[in-house]
Amino acid sequence: MIADRIIQKIDERKNFCVVGLDPRLELIPKQLKIGNSNKEAAESIRKFNFAIIDAIYDLVPAVKLQIAFYELFGSEGFQAYINTVKYAKSKGLIVIGDAKRNDIGSTSKAYAKAHLSKDGIDVDILTVNPYLGSDGLKPFIDVCKEEGKGIFVLVKTSNPSSGEFQDRMIGINSNEVNELNKLGVQTQMNRTFLYNLVGLQVNRFANENIGKNGYSSIGAVVGATYPEQAQGLRKVMPKSFILVPGYGAQGGKAKDIVDFVNDDGYGALVNSSRGIIFAYQETNDEENFAQSARDATKEMIKDINLALKEANKIPISWGKEK
Amino acid sequence: MIADRIIQKIDERKNFCVVGLDPRLELIPKQLKIGNSNKEAAESIRKFNFAIIDAIYDLVPAVKLQIAFYELFGSEGFQAYINTVKYAKSKGLIVIGDAKRNDIGSTSKAYAKAHLSKDGIDVDILTVNPYLGSDGLKPFIDVCKEEGKGIFVLVKTSNPSSGEFQDRMIGINSNEVNELNKLGVQTQMNRTFLYNLVGLQVNRFANENIGKNGYSSIGAVVGATYPEQAQGLRKVMPKSFILVPGYGAQGGKAKDIVDFVNDDGYGALVNSSRGIIFAYQETNDEENFAQSARDATKEMIKDINLALKEANKIPISWGKEK
Repeated sequence: MIADRIIQKIDERKNFCVVGLDPRLELIPKQLKIGNSNKEAAESIRKFNFAIIDAIYDLVPAVKLQIAFYELFGSEGFQAYINTVKYAKSKGLIVIGDAKRNDIGSTSKAYAKAHLSKDGIDVDILTVNPYLGSDGLKPFIDVCKEEGKGIFVLVKTSNPSSGEFQDRMIGINSNEVNELNKLGVQTQMNRTFLYNLVGLQVNRFANENIGKNGYSSIGAVVGATYPEQAQGLRKVMPKSFILVPGYGAQGGKAKDIVDFVNDDGYGALVNSSRGIIFAYQETNDEENFAQSARDATKEMIKDINLALKEANKIPISWGKEK
Repeated sequence: MIADRIIQKIDERKNFCVVGLDPRLELIPKQLKIGNSNKEAAESIRKFNFAIIDAIYDLVPAVKLQIAFYELFGSEGFQAYINTVKYAKSKGLIVIGDAKRNDIGSTSKAYAKAHLSKDGIDVDILTVNPYLGSDGLKPFIDVCKEEGKGIFVLVKTSNPSSGEFQDRMIGINSNEVNELNKLGVQTQMNRTFLYNLVGLQVNRFANENIGKNGYSSIGAVVGATYPEQAQGLRKVMPKSFILVPGYGAQGGKAKDIVDFVNDDGYGALVNSSRGIIFAYQETNDEENFAQSARDATKEMIKDINLALKEANKIPISWGKEK
């Protein structure tokens, strides 16, 4: 099951960084550009992704693909997404499909099969939106159980307006108050933040899907830009991996990351997209974009692991050196 | 712009029924089945859809495609989705892409261009999930303005567990209390339902995108299974079309639909999927599935228009007969 594989990969690579394959056509190095048709754009993207994967697969445990940048090029783009997933898996990487899918009942099941099933696109983990409640999550979780896969549920997103709904104080019942208090989270007169309630739901599902290493295949998404909220959410979902977008380009810092990590050093997967795959913009070396991406990945790993060390959260199994 | 086209089409067809093209492979009539590969499944689905469209295009203003059932068959399924969109448009139908997409910033813009743009899949209207707040909605709305398209934002979904988050009482500020009260919606000690706050956000965006008929291209999704909530939400979003799933197979009745309709007779688009496209299961006439779908569409129109007449909400422009 995927939670155990995540731990294994993190221990192998001695970091929990994720490279985000969000290929914006306008930033693809010019030597890979063929033309502007969907077919040509998709082929440029595929080549770019394969080169990035070749450059970083031995460094990080996982990649994350943002499917919007593939849907932009129709069915050819969709196929480039599928081909990239397959290639990344063949290189031993864990693959997160960032598709934020959501629906109910049999439709939700169709999405789950389409993305997570071995007969489908076959990503290891899919991001999912919780707005429709547990009807919308259960069909994904069923497929996760059957196929040893995982989901990361949006809890607190990295964007400036994420608080518009997610940070509202909402009414909760006495059971929910007790559940949150037991997890070490204060409530306020039978009220809490919406993101805490969503987190609580994630935690309930997570507890039903625990691997031998004590972590769950049902995880969450919490933005690096909200370290304060992360402190509470880490308690609400102690056994869930938290996928953390927003490091780098969006403003999240390494010192903010440590709040997403449990005391055992696990529990977070930190994504960077633009800052890695288009690092050639910083080095001004479009020709050697893949080497720039590799160097930027090493920098990110160093940056986060240093913060981790300072917070005394380096996993024991990594040993003292690193 | 699409809001005006919706009114025009509703007046032409004298109904606001939407046929949902959610092709479940296991229910596709056997004479259309070729095989089980993605390519063969996608071709079966395409043929099925074209036959259904041929059978109903002169009856209803719009069709809705649930993209999950297409993604299930990889890039070939994705192409069948695109081809069905194009065919439905060529027959004069308004096409709603039910993809419930959601993300932020440039990713959200990529989704918007992928689905709504003339250079992309080119649906007329896309369903969108609001959990990420206005950062997640604005990029869609920008593309809608540029290209005369629309979005329907999930507000209150049709499923049993939709209340888990959507029905929670949440804290609102005094401006929001005033806004809701002005719209005729009671609030309770600076609190309201989460769906009302999401509805209020939809209404704000809707007011910036009004067509010459007084309706907006920014609409909402509210399930037919929640007519009580619909009464309030109709007030919260007076100028928005409400896409109403859940009629028929999910249990929504014609008498429940009238609460989604404004006094002028407009404002709702009611979808039925299984009950129409797989109506041959009721008639036991798999051979003539398209005729069964046509008959079921006529039944649905009759059923809803009768309820509309009894509620004295038939639009004036339809005339007395119908």
